[in-house]
Amino acid sequence: MSAPRDPRTADLGRLVVRCPDRPGIVAALSGLMAQVGANITESQQHSSDPSGGTFTLRLEFVLADLAGRRAELEAALAGLAGEWQLTWRLTEAAHTPRLAVFVSRTDHVLQELLYRVGSGDLRAEIAAVVSNHPDLEPVARAHGVPFHHVPVTPDTKDAAEARALELIGDVDLVVLARYMQIVSPDFCSRFPERLINIHHSFLPAFVGANPYQAAHDRGVKLIGATAHYVTAELDAGPIIEQEVARVDHRATVDDMRRIGRYVERQVLAQAVTWHVEDRVVVEGDRTIVFG
Amino acid sequence: MSAPRDPRTADLGRLVVRCPDRPGIVAALSGLMAQVGANITESQQHSSDPSGGTFTLRLEFVLADLAGRRAELEAALAGLAGEWQLTWRLTEAAHTPRLAVFVSRTDHVLQELLYRVGSGDLRAEIAAVVSNHPDLEPVARAHGVPFHHVPVTPDTKDAAEARALELIGDVDLVVLARYMQIVSPDFCSRFPERLINIHHSFLPAFVGANPYQAAHDRGVKLIGATAHYVTAELDAGPIIEQEVARVDHRATVDDMRRIGRYVERQVLAQAVTWHVEDRVVVEGDRTIVFG
Amino acid sequence: MSAPRDPRTADLGRLVVRCPDRPGIVAALSGLMAQVGANITESQQHSSDPSGGTFTLRLEFVLADLAGRRAELEAALAGLAGEWQLTWRLTEAAHTPRLAVFVSRTDHVLQELLYRVGSGDLRAEIAAVVSNHPDLEPVARAHGVPFHHVPVTPDTKDAAEARALELIGDVDLVVLARYMQIVSPDFCSRFPERLINIHHSFLPAFVGANPYQAAHDRGVKLIGATAHYVTAELDAGPIIEQEVARVDHRATVDDMRRIGRYVERQVLAQAVTWHVEDRVVVEGDRTIVFG
Amino acid sequence: MSAPRDPRTADLGRLVVRCPDRPGIVAALSGLMAQVGANITESQQHSSDPSGGTFTLRLEFVLADLAGRRAELEAALAGLAGEWQLTWRLTEAAHTPRLAVFVSRTDHVLQELLYRVGSGDLRAEIAAVVSNHPDLEPVARAHGVPFHHVPVTPDTKDAAEARALELIGDVDLVVLARYMQIVSPDFCSRFPERLINIHHSFLPAFVGANPYQAAHDRGVKLIGATAHYVTAELDAGPIIEQEVARVDHRATVDDMRRIGRYVERQVLAQAVTWHVEDRVVVEGDRTIVFG
Repeated sequence: MSAPRDPRTADLGRLVVRCPDRPGIVAALSGLMAQVGANITESQQHSSDPSGGTFTLRLEFVLADLAGRRAELEAALAGLAGEWQLTWRLTEAAHTPRLAVFVSRTDHVLQELLYRVGSGDLRAEIAAVVSNHPDLEPVARAHGVPFHHVPVTPDTKDAAEARALELIGDVDLVVLARYMQIVSPDFCSRFPERLINIHHSFLPAFVGANPYQAAHDRGVKLIGATAHYVTAELDAGPIIEQEVARVDHRATVDDMRRIGRYVERQVLAQAVTWHVEDRVVVEGDRTIVFG
Repeated sequence: MSAPRDPRTADLGRLVVRCPDRPGIVAALSGLMAQVGANITESQQHSSDPSGGTFTLRLEFVLADLAGRRAELEAALAGLAGEWQLTWRLTEAAHTPRLAVFVSRTDHVLQELLYRVGSGDLRAEIAAVVSNHPDLEPVARAHGVPFHHVPVTPDTKDAAEARALELIGDVDLVVLARYMQIVSPDFCSRFPERLINIHHSFLPAFVGANPYQAAHDRGVKLIGATAHYVTAELDAGPIIEQEVARVDHRATVDDMRRIGRYVERQVLAQAVTWHVEDRVVVEGDRTIVFG
Repeated sequence: MSAPRDPRTADLGRLVVRCPDRPGIVAALSGLMAQVGANITESQQHSSDPSGGTFTLRLEFVLADLAGRRAELEAALAGLAGEWQLTWRLTEAAHTPRLAVFVSRTDHVLQELLYRVGSGDLRAEIAAVVSNHPDLEPVARAHGVPFHHVPVTPDTKDAAEARALELIGDVDLVVLARYMQIVSPDFCSRFPERLINIHHSFLPAFVGANPYQAAHDRGVKLIGATAHYVTAELDAGPIIEQEVARVDHRATVDDMRRIGRYVERQVLAQAVTWHVEDRVVVEGDRTIVFG
Repeated sequence: MSAPRDPRTADLGRLVVRCPDRPGIVAALSGLMAQVGANITESQQHSSDPSGGTFTLRLEFVLADLAGRRAELEAALAGLAGEWQLTWRLTEAAHTPRLAVFVSRTDHVLQELLYRVGSGDLRAEIAAVVSNHPDLEPVARAHGVPFHHVPVTPDTKDAAEARALELIGDVDLVVLARYMQIVSPDFCSRFPERLINIHHSFLPAFVGANPYQAAHDRGVKLIGATAHYVTAELDAGPIIEQEVARVDHRATVDDMRRIGRYVERQVLAQAVTWHVEDRVVVEGDRTIVFG
């Protein structure tokens, strides 16, 4: 990457390690990090069960010449892997993750992602915007982001997904930002734990389409939104973040939709930010979020 | 009532009027109130639809010698009733509503109601506590409230409900404060819009029993509680109030239960307070809350 | 205005009336509205003190051919004005208020206002953006909004304000959207109750400059923002809206600033929205907000 | 202690360690814990500055026969203390901390502490309630807690504090639960980082007496409460927790006081809970809260 060296991310690494929980694992890992000379700046851990559960550790650390010494660090981890049954993910913060954002006609979530990327609050690059409608092309273009209009009909769904995959190329994360199409299980399987959706309700209440109408009919006093990883089972993937907003009897369905937009953009942007900072770990049907 | 005259409630009245929405209704009602000399101190209104919907008005007012002039005020309302198809509820704030509280073994909601009655924040009298377990008798007794232990088995449910009804006598509101029994449709029908339940989840998510376990399994990031009027259809009555609390991946089911208790007590106490202040109006499956 | 007729605002009026509180005032005003044939769709009222205080009423209503019949409605109000000592503000919702937005270098609040205007959530026109720095010109231009760079130095402040006033022309509201200059008392006096500022702290904590540093040093657990009308006394004008966000010991001053931006944009956008919908009434040092 | 062994706390230890931040410290400490055979169940750390700041680590761990092996663990820590300049606090969760609660006339915070102790949510013993008024004696007595009435006048303050100290005896924490007296610097100095106050405002706004009146006059839209350690400088000690509640223009000073009570009890109870679980570490004027 020829981008100027950013002092906030240079030599900053992130390591997420998982293994069966056994006494001594922290000592082994922190010993390894001390040995290579890494200075740990943030550390969070979780055990699903101290007796026989899974241990998860997330470290942020500074290591001089991280890029040059990455192989060495990985070799050291590999040396522990057998004994402790480790799996790990090692990321250099200087690497900017590439996102593809799928939208339909509403722009509020896309606008929020663009704003946060622009402000530096979300350290990612939006590599492409894909939509089944042409409406948001100007929004993407105004931010210098390639826009691909890929219409979808029931008959062309497979071809459309194939076309979209071709267009977005190699990306780290796909974000469904109020994309009003159900993606196929095959599409999901290409982005395991790398496909995030915003569902415009407080899951598992009001799964499916038109949750604001359903929420209004049920007379709820809070409306919500849920960001979750997408799995083959619709609306059932691991939840990353949820938030709610208060409504009262005066709120029409349109009011709920309007209020909901601000919840949706906040929840999805938060989930994406945590994801790209390697703060989210999937554990079965749930997530660990080292927020 | 021989209680000392409370300057906060003496001569304070509350009027809730409903009728088809037509231009002039506010003028007609406020004209009536001006004519009898009532001084309106709070006024809220809602129209389900300005064209052909239902209009609801809630007034708080001060009228000198309200008790003595109640008949006159009702006669004036009756005079308008035909022309405007009015229904109304007129309450004297000096009347302290009588509550029966049904509990099982957990005391947090009962304790909260007792505290709020004691502090004057909830202007009501807890006339009786009924439980299918004996555990909370000391709690009720310590506050000078009669406690009735009415065991329930599947075979004795009808008799138990009949016994409970006899014991509580004439009450204005029945509160199910974590009462772990499903009350019968017949019981419900005796307290139309006067039977409030706290459901320990964010309805309509996790209807039924053990919602905290279900919420944990689903990996939600917010847990909630819902206070609602009880109707014959389980967990489906009109919602009065909801609230949530944040949980993270560390929370066990027990932690959620513990955190949930504080949400439950807050939500139910708020709903009961609004109810006894005539701030809740049922409109179909929903509620209008003039909070 | 030659804009197409918007069915959401056509013939929709807003009336805010203030007068000494006396029994009968609601009857008089609602009688007047009924007489002219206005259909009241929203009504809120407040009395600073039912005995001798000030009564405030806000109505939304639909009146066929409102623009044509405005004079008639005002004449009717004038007819009541003497007897009841009324003052009033009558607005046609079809009139789009013109805003001038003053900024310095940070764009988050401006972006939010532009987004909300674009989405229709804020029914206003941003007539001009004024800044003492040139940085945000592209942001304004991208939305088709005139941008005026008016540098300010201690020596040129008066001239700069005069120049800005000339450039913005006739506007309904001036919004200081993180404008890092103190405006003069003379400037304030030109926009009584029409000049809104966002203060990046929870007033009255941390008045003055650099509140995030001060909040960090004090170790607060919540940071906030305050939108208020600007008066001659710095940071002391009537508060319209406040909100907070949680921070913990890990938050640096920069983190607080970053988190604070999202609070600031929300609080200011909410305050401006309420203002342009005539929902805010100044009463002494405080505001009534009919939210 | 002859109390029955509680499986939730038996052999559960808590260790808070502080030292200058240097690479290797986590390895050294986790190595030590692994060596003695402790199973770490919760671990949180914070560095005030990775280069030359102070490192703080909080561990929860299970160690078989913790009470019997405490000396061994302390010896091992002492062995590291010189090299790393460690200070530490080691607590056995089975030890129930003793609290003295100082109150005046209002009972809401005391009630909340009593409820939480009774429910087991707050694992502490209220050893004594001290008050400058006799009013709350029945509340304490109903929970079997000794109550001491110690009147205070300007002239008798020193003697009164001495008397109170004598009466409460040896306690782990003193809680000022809306105690309407300013305690002396001498009293403060006896409980360094062990004296918690609830201030009924959002500090540093509205320091001093009658903050609700001040908040009302200023027209704030949120009222708050702050729990903090008490130092010799009034209202300036390190903040542990803060929370706010929304109010609107209708709220009188009395309403704010009423709403505020629920915020106060929540904030103080949370702060006390974190304190007794060794989750709060004072760092200069601020606190680290491992919540």
